[in-house]
Amino acid sequence: MENAQARWLWYPGDLEKYHALKQNFSRVERGCPWPAFWKSDGFRQRVAFRRTYHLEKPTSFAVFGTPGGAGYVDLNGRKYPFGQEIFCEPGEIKISLHIGCIGCVPAVYVQGDVICSDDGWTVEDYCEPTVPAASNRYFTAPEQNVADWPLLEKRFDPISIEAVNGGALFTFETELTAELEIVGLTNMTTVYLGESRAEALDTANCYYSCTPDPETHRCPRQALRYAFIPGYQPEQLSVRAFHRYVDVPVRAKFTCDDEELNRIFAVAAHTFSLCCDVFFLDGVKRDKWIWGGDAYQSLFVNRYLTGDKDIEQRTLIALRGNDPVTTHINTILDYSLLWILSMGEHEETYHDEAFLSRMWPQMISLMELVRSQRDEHGFVIGRKQDWVFIDWADFDRDGPLCAEQMLLAAAYDVMVRYGNAEEKTRYEAEKAALLSAIETYFWDEEKSAYVDSFTSGKRHVTRHANILAIVFDLVSEERKRQITQSVLFNAAVPAITTPYFRFFELDALCRLGYLKEVLSEIKSYWGGMLKLGAVTFWEEYDPKLPLEKQYAMYGDPFGKSLCHAWAASPIYLLARYFVGLRPDQDSASGFAATPAPGFFDSLDCTLQLGETTVQVIARDGKTEIKLVP
Amino acid sequence: MENAQARWLWYPGDLEKYHALKQNFSRVERGCPWPAFWKSDGFRQRVAFRRTYHLEKPTSFAVFGTPGGAGYVDLNGRKYPFGQEIFCEPGEIKISLHIGCIGCVPAVYVQGDVICSDDGWTVEDYCEPTVPAASNRYFTAPEQNVADWPLLEKRFDPISIEAVNGGALFTFETELTAELEIVGLTNMTTVYLGESRAEALDTANCYYSCTPDPETHRCPRQALRYAFIPGYQPEQLSVRAFHRYVDVPVRAKFTCDDEELNRIFAVAAHTFSLCCDVFFLDGVKRDKWIWGGDAYQSLFVNRYLTGDKDIEQRTLIALRGNDPVTTHINTILDYSLLWILSMGEHEETYHDEAFLSRMWPQMISLMELVRSQRDEHGFVIGRKQDWVFIDWADFDRDGPLCAEQMLLAAAYDVMVRYGNAEEKTRYEAEKAALLSAIETYFWDEEKSAYVDSFTSGKRHVTRHANILAIVFDLVSEERKRQITQSVLFNAAVPAITTPYFRFFELDALCRLGYLKEVLSEIKSYWGGMLKLGAVTFWEEYDPKLPLEKQYAMYGDPFGKSLCHAWAASPIYLLARYFVGLRPDQDSASGFAATPAPGFFDSLDCTLQLGETTVQVIARDGKTEIKLVP
Repeated sequence: MENAQARWLWYPGDLEKYHALKQNFSRVERGCPWPAFWKSDGFRQRVAFRRTYHLEKPTSFAVFGTPGGAGYVDLNGRKYPFGQEIFCEPGEIKISLHIGCIGCVPAVYVQGDVICSDDGWTVEDYCEPTVPAASNRYFTAPEQNVADWPLLEKRFDPISIEAVNGGALFTFETELTAELEIVGLTNMTTVYLGESRAEALDTANCYYSCTPDPETHRCPRQALRYAFIPGYQPEQLSVRAFHRYVDVPVRAKFTCDDEELNRIFAVAAHTFSLCCDVFFLDGVKRDKWIWGGDAYQSLFVNRYLTGDKDIEQRTLIALRGNDPVTTHINTILDYSLLWILSMGEHEETYHDEAFLSRMWPQMISLMELVRSQRDEHGFVIGRKQDWVFIDWADFDRDGPLCAEQMLLAAAYDVMVRYGNAEEKTRYEAEKAALLSAIETYFWDEEKSAYVDSFTSGKRHVTRHANILAIVFDLVSEERKRQITQSVLFNAAVPAITTPYFRFFELDALCRLGYLKEVLSEIKSYWGGMLKLGAVTFWEEYDPKLPLEKQYAMYGDPFGKSLCHAWAASPIYLLARYFVGLRPDQDSASGFAATPAPGFFDSLDCTLQLGETTVQVIARDGKTEIKLVP
Repeated sequence: MENAQARWLWYPGDLEKYHALKQNFSRVERGCPWPAFWKSDGFRQRVAFRRTYHLEKPTSFAVFGTPGGAGYVDLNGRKYPFGQEIFCEPGEIKISLHIGCIGCVPAVYVQGDVICSDDGWTVEDYCEPTVPAASNRYFTAPEQNVADWPLLEKRFDPISIEAVNGGALFTFETELTAELEIVGLTNMTTVYLGESRAEALDTANCYYSCTPDPETHRCPRQALRYAFIPGYQPEQLSVRAFHRYVDVPVRAKFTCDDEELNRIFAVAAHTFSLCCDVFFLDGVKRDKWIWGGDAYQSLFVNRYLTGDKDIEQRTLIALRGNDPVTTHINTILDYSLLWILSMGEHEETYHDEAFLSRMWPQMISLMELVRSQRDEHGFVIGRKQDWVFIDWADFDRDGPLCAEQMLLAAAYDVMVRYGNAEEKTRYEAEKAALLSAIETYFWDEEKSAYVDSFTSGKRHVTRHANILAIVFDLVSEERKRQITQSVLFNAAVPAITTPYFRFFELDALCRLGYLKEVLSEIKSYWGGMLKLGAVTFWEEYDPKLPLEKQYAMYGDPFGKSLCHAWAASPIYLLARYFVGLRPDQDSASGFAATPAPGFFDSLDCTLQLGETTVQVIARDGKTEIKLVP
């Protein structure tokens, strides 16, 4: 008795919040577990699922609950335990499934040919109105435990084995998130892992070390490319890596006549894929946390690379947490605003109205928190407990920071786009007033730029607010031209130093039409990493430094992540501006693709645009666009 | 290196919420786990503890965290793992202890001679302002797991062993919450437990059955007095019960010249003690849930019996759960009001200002929920999702129910008592308006009684609202006299049928001076149970039924709890009104004791009054009162 449509069911959002806790508590630095340092919202611990059937024939079913949970089946008022076949006669059958679980999401699975956990169940938490139960494609078998996200596995053998420093060094072809299997150890031995060869060999400073389980011979799943085992000769050991990953398939491919660009796209795709776990991660060695700013940029890449709507929604749900919202996402004011913008980006790509209407109250309440922090001009200001980040840069942080106001204006735009008539009117008015106040207080006519702060009197200019004004189309074309000259192409204004904000800068340059400059930057910056042997793209790269000086960051000799999601932005830049693929409401297909002229002699790309797969072939001045089934 | 003051630390309230989930999910009915059917609030999953020391000498310490938690020690900016001895030099030492834990309270223990987890640590949850860390007397050793509440154990051997119904029946001297140990079983055998002999022998209908663990030979901790093991002869088996209980010591004793009363007090004390677990439980076989109405009555008994402030605070914290509060306690409107009243009762007994000021915002927010449900007259009305309970009685539930308004008026009183000037004024005005509206709409001059409903036109009278008006002193003495005659002593008004509400009725009678009638009722009702062989007092008792018909309730042949906290009310009635021990702000000792004249030739009682132990000896017309150290 089984129905192929049956899936595990839970209260919407609970699975995401449970796995987000697991994810954000999973970071380990040199033997110290390092749980993320922000408010960590939990899942519901007691829910009830309900459904009424009208049976024409007798049938039977069995219910399974989250292991460790306490619950029962109520069938027409009588109780039955989980795990037992329950028989029912024809007629009206009212079923409720009760479960309480402290340590994990309370979830149920109903196995049966007629009565099963397919669509049609509701769930209540004894607080909010009853809602449809949630499920996903990963949890479809009764023997699964919703605590353990199912992973695919692929075996990798080392491509190189060396005797070095009195031990054995194993090298894999690329970076993996793998369980390392080591057979042949004769005692409890510490294994040193590295994203770089240097890291694995530096047993004092490498980020991760581990000891294989004596039964399975496997180490816990970790980011690694290199493994160093001191005290052994290579021939004593048999080492394999079992790469374990969440099934988020990639169909996208980019092929043009520039092999370096093809390689950049492929390495960016591998980098991004590694960072697509249950959620968008910032990096696979570090932090392994769900950051709102990193996730925002991941949306732009993901739209073109995987088109996987679910990982976006999981990430957005996990970031947002529960109401009442009293702290900003990851404690960062700008990340709250970027979350609102993320909801807009997601919706523009996938048009999932059910998801939007489910999240809308949380968008409103987060905006209310932001609005509660406005001053008399309508400028948002960080509270004592807030992190006003924007970027690692030398801002004049006196009073309201201009870049935050640009994000706020852009967030109002999203609220205007999806609000009802009353909400639209209100947010439109607030946006207009904010933009006018920005002009009054932050625009410096003499410098022809937006200054960081108007309260300090220093009139200090950074690129950030000016870039955001362009990216979010908040100013006139005339202003954009002024900013371009006086800020973007003004070497006197300090350069953007982080790849995080470089995403916004390159996006701005593309929007302004400076594709040639952007392509050159892609080839020099990302191509530069490739020339140093990168197999995944890095959190940061300084072209002036030799390879051995590239690994340090945050004062830590191996602190830099060598596989970082935000470094995958060439995928977005190439797809959006060079292949020219973008949503287009006016087109019947919902998208348009107009490759930028003059860059490629030939182009053959398969890209996602959300859930649509598009092939764009450009050759001899002709462009062919196909929907891939 | 150890400091005797060290204890496990957690965020205030988290331990209570975790153990409340465990408690409310622990009920099992005939093999079906039955988690409580209300909103179940969780604990925080990520906290950080902080403290600064100024060391004069070098020292060392080690930190332990909740098993399964992820965390580290930060000492002057450097990370150290848990479980490792950490050395520090003299000077300023800034320590923060970070921990995230999904399945249990994140807690820490610091072991060291100078640096240890005694008073002085603060804790933050990345949301609320930093607060002092919490601890209690039960968790003081580093090897403990805060998931497991430590229990004391006492061994009981059976007082009777019989061969019956093809099996062996073991009887213990009284009811226990015990792990049953069975040695001699030759196969997996189901053991049937009972609060009554009849229940244990009814293998089809008994509430609990279990199978001993093959290693330890023990069954899970359950309420039991009888154990039946089918298919075995008594001589094949060795059976013992290990009674396991939370350490809430009882010093109180009641001795007078009436042996039946002494026995009633002693059996009530045993009954109540069994129901004092981590929280006040309603009953030990069933429900094993934390109910606000039952807990309210437990406060009155506990004040005199154990004087244990902590179990009261644990119960009040667990019941109240988290803000924002959107549902009533246990879903019951009156239980929310009784929780406010419980806070007042607790405070009147223990004068714990720190606890009151910590809980005050939650009292306010719960009152706000109640106030949000008022109609144009100021009467509180249940919403669709609320349970308007008051009692199992045949109320006219059309429109606002009078008894709820009486509770609301009494709750306003508590808020007036502890509020600041502004709050006092507001709640006083609301109370006065409410009482006036009650008089206008619910008082029936003709019936000389408060009617249930004024909207239905039926003018239906039950005892409940009238009793509450007396108990909470909401009406004039004249009104009380009217009600006494026309309701309390009017046989035409349906009798109170539940021991739950009989508590309020007997309290009212005592307040009105009808001690003789109350004593007679205590002797007939509770004495009646003793005559049927009760070793603990029951959830309900019908004097008209023979013993074998006493076990059924809620349509279940063994549904009645034979050990129920609310049945311990004679302790309160005897202590408060017959011994006459009560708080007295005007007395230097803070209490007064004036035994009611004419009931006892001699009296020698040791009772708590909160945390004070008082001995009252009355003999030959003289009363002696001693403070017991």
